[in-house]
Amino acid sequence: MANKEIIVAGILDTKGEEIKFLAERVRAAGGNPTILELSVGHEVGWADISLSDVVKRVGKTKEDIFALDRNAASDLIAGGAIKLVDELREAGKLDGIIAYGGSMGASIATRTMQSLPIGVPKIMLTTMASGDVSPYVGTRDICMMYPIAEAGLNKVTRQVINNAAGAIVGMASAPVMKGIEEKPLIGCMMFGVTTPCVLRASSIMEKAGYDVIINHAVGSGGRSMEELIRDGYITGVLDITTHEIGDEMLGGVLGAGPDRMTAAGDLGIPQVVAPGGLDLINFGPKHTVPERLLKETDQPGRGLYEHNPTVTCIGVSMDEIYRIGEHMAQKLNAAKGPSVLCVPMQGWGACDLATPDIELGWSGPGSGPTWAADMENPRWSRRSVEYVKALKAKIDPNKENLEVILVDKHMNDPDFSDLMAGLLLEMLQGSWSKGNKSALPYVIPF
Amino acid sequence: MANKEIIVAGILDTKGEEIKFLAERVRAAGGNPTILELSVGHEVGWADISLSDVVKRVGKTKEDIFALDRNAASDLIAGGAIKLVDELREAGKLDGIIAYGGSMGASIATRTMQSLPIGVPKIMLTTMASGDVSPYVGTRDICMMYPIAEAGLNKVTRQVINNAAGAIVGMASAPVMKGIEEKPLIGCMMFGVTTPCVLRASSIMEKAGYDVIINHAVGSGGRSMEELIRDGYITGVLDITTHEIGDEMLGGVLGAGPDRMTAAGDLGIPQVVAPGGLDLINFGPKHTVPERLLKETDQPGRGLYEHNPTVTCIGVSMDEIYRIGEHMAQKLNAAKGPSVLCVPMQGWGACDLATPDIELGWSGPGSGPTWAADMENPRWSRRSVEYVKALKAKIDPNKENLEVILVDKHMNDPDFSDLMAGLLLEMLQGSWSKGNKSALPYVIPF
Repeated sequence: MANKEIIVAGILDTKGEEIKFLAERVRAAGGNPTILELSVGHEVGWADISLSDVVKRVGKTKEDIFALDRNAASDLIAGGAIKLVDELREAGKLDGIIAYGGSMGASIATRTMQSLPIGVPKIMLTTMASGDVSPYVGTRDICMMYPIAEAGLNKVTRQVINNAAGAIVGMASAPVMKGIEEKPLIGCMMFGVTTPCVLRASSIMEKAGYDVIINHAVGSGGRSMEELIRDGYITGVLDITTHEIGDEMLGGVLGAGPDRMTAAGDLGIPQVVAPGGLDLINFGPKHTVPERLLKETDQPGRGLYEHNPTVTCIGVSMDEIYRIGEHMAQKLNAAKGPSVLCVPMQGWGACDLATPDIELGWSGPGSGPTWAADMENPRWSRRSVEYVKALKAKIDPNKENLEVILVDKHMNDPDFSDLMAGLLLEMLQGSWSKGNKSALPYVIPF
Repeated sequence: MANKEIIVAGILDTKGEEIKFLAERVRAAGGNPTILELSVGHEVGWADISLSDVVKRVGKTKEDIFALDRNAASDLIAGGAIKLVDELREAGKLDGIIAYGGSMGASIATRTMQSLPIGVPKIMLTTMASGDVSPYVGTRDICMMYPIAEAGLNKVTRQVINNAAGAIVGMASAPVMKGIEEKPLIGCMMFGVTTPCVLRASSIMEKAGYDVIINHAVGSGGRSMEELIRDGYITGVLDITTHEIGDEMLGGVLGAGPDRMTAAGDLGIPQVVAPGGLDLINFGPKHTVPERLLKETDQPGRGLYEHNPTVTCIGVSMDEIYRIGEHMAQKLNAAKGPSVLCVPMQGWGACDLATPDIELGWSGPGSGPTWAADMENPRWSRRSVEYVKALKAKIDPNKENLEVILVDKHMNDPDFSDLMAGLLLEMLQGSWSKGNKSALPYVIPF
């Protein structure tokens, strides 16, 4: 077995000795280290890949970089390093990456690591590793390791660095898994209010021979799902819970960025979508809800729901859901693969019910906090009706791969769950065609 | 080389499949896995070391455990696991430990890992690894790894688990370091206000052939130093910055637990101590400072100092410093090795000066925010004088290994730094004896 190619990265003008030592220990452990310079202050001249090589990838020279403030410089260095490690990986010259640094070094190095696919070994040694590491880890399989001391080589840090070097080489050398029956993987988005629907649908998929990965729709979950799809892990998507799109548009705290619900469409992967949780905008403790919204809680569907002391939800208004409908329609119009949006007209989650129903998730008293009945057809949610108006205005009716199905059920009704899972199975088996569910008694013409 | 013995731990009644798979991959990577059960709900019966074996170490049966609430149960399981891994390590049957779990599993497993010395390979796979991991990592070299999905075995999680298995075996197999001249290590405590003193003293130690590890006195730093001493890494201690003791006693936020400044004494390791930073109690943003203290800022030495928006300091009062003096005297009386407490009578840090002096750390205007002049000898800090009264009342004068030296200097005066480093060097060379600095012009009789 050839020696594994390990990138050893860091800010060499301040942590040079530590990084040299790390590279030595990678070699001692049987790896082939390549030192990658991420220096922000000056170029040291002894790196295997110099800062100049890095920032050339973003059209800059080291002089350009050193003329900038440290934050602007770090963005460009990370941008260059992301391109560089991608080139190395494509060329088979990157079997793992390890870095050592303080907060700045960790920021640049982990942004670079986050750009690499899941499964590529990644270790970050930093004293930032005993605190909130979410900015460094994001949604990636990055190992964070705490080197005890701030800097310097001594009995303590040498031992930790030696272990880290053994870990990255060991990870890069982990034997290929054999004899495991890898089932195709279904990506699924869940939240408290859609749990009954998601668990039932995922169980149907599992019985049909698929593995299911369920992410929580709390921002990181949606980002991670989009990345898993783009990395090629996902065969089909049950995008049942999409309120991250609403939070992104309306200032809630669970946004997942502007690219939510784009990866499956871009790659032509089958997707069955629903507006799960889109009756809610999510905030932190009640005092963090914008004043403007608190003043509107007497409007239809604008109810406030204090889930617990740290999570407060407020209903999505009729204007807002129209805009969300337009936005989702545009994203779905761009989808290249089979795509169905199923709209449960009787409510979109456990807070969105006309009357208490413990099976559907709301124990009462009274109607759910985000419920607003449609005036013409009070069994339907007014928000659903507004949403459908936007879809009718924007969805491209000529696309044979795209359908909107209106369902006279609540989100958490077993029939709705069965319909979504059934659609995805048909898509995966190639037997789905637009309109083939029209005869079902609870399907309403769009 | 014999296969490395890897403990594979977790809550088997909920994460059993994942942990079995992890153990398989450890074996595939060349390790010898032993599955350690930390189950809170019920015993699975297939573990190599069952929950019953674990809790036997704390005198309990599995029935005792399952009758408790989950938190109480987890404390006992962690207690048993700590004893068990210590036994295994002593017997040469533990070369590394890896665990997989949610928040409860991570809590029990990392408490167990934290009990193992630095250098013993430790990996925790948990979705808690993309958030605030400080409760899990503490001050230890624990690798935290994010498995992307909450639970379940699929293409994504199998790949991350396989990598983690490779990492723990690789870490346990990291080659022994050869040809490195390991210098004896000096432990040193620093904070912003004592930086000039610490850097000068540590540089003296380095020139004399020692390595120096400098920890920040922010709670975790002091805990880590005590642990490093108990783990045998430290040859001598320059405990220049001891305000973690004050914060612990007075409700500040940088306490390091009740055992601060005990390890060196217990192990008989030479220590030179100073009251660096003990003019300050440390809090977070100003609104977090107790009302009671804010009302006393007109009292001598009780000044408020807003270091930045997230760090607010308030002066230690004369009553408080007397109590701190008594407390430190008792700890020093118990010390088994050479111990000198050096008290700089002209102030204890950059906030504690009679007049601005940029070399000593205070640029003015006026005196430092915590300064209070002694009434009889206004060159001395009143706080120092009160502190010395407590020391005189409590320090055991008959101990030949223990001395208090009063120094007519400021903490950040080079002479004070040179004195502390000089004392430690003499202790390490065996040439120190109580009273041998009395002839220095700035030493005041105690």
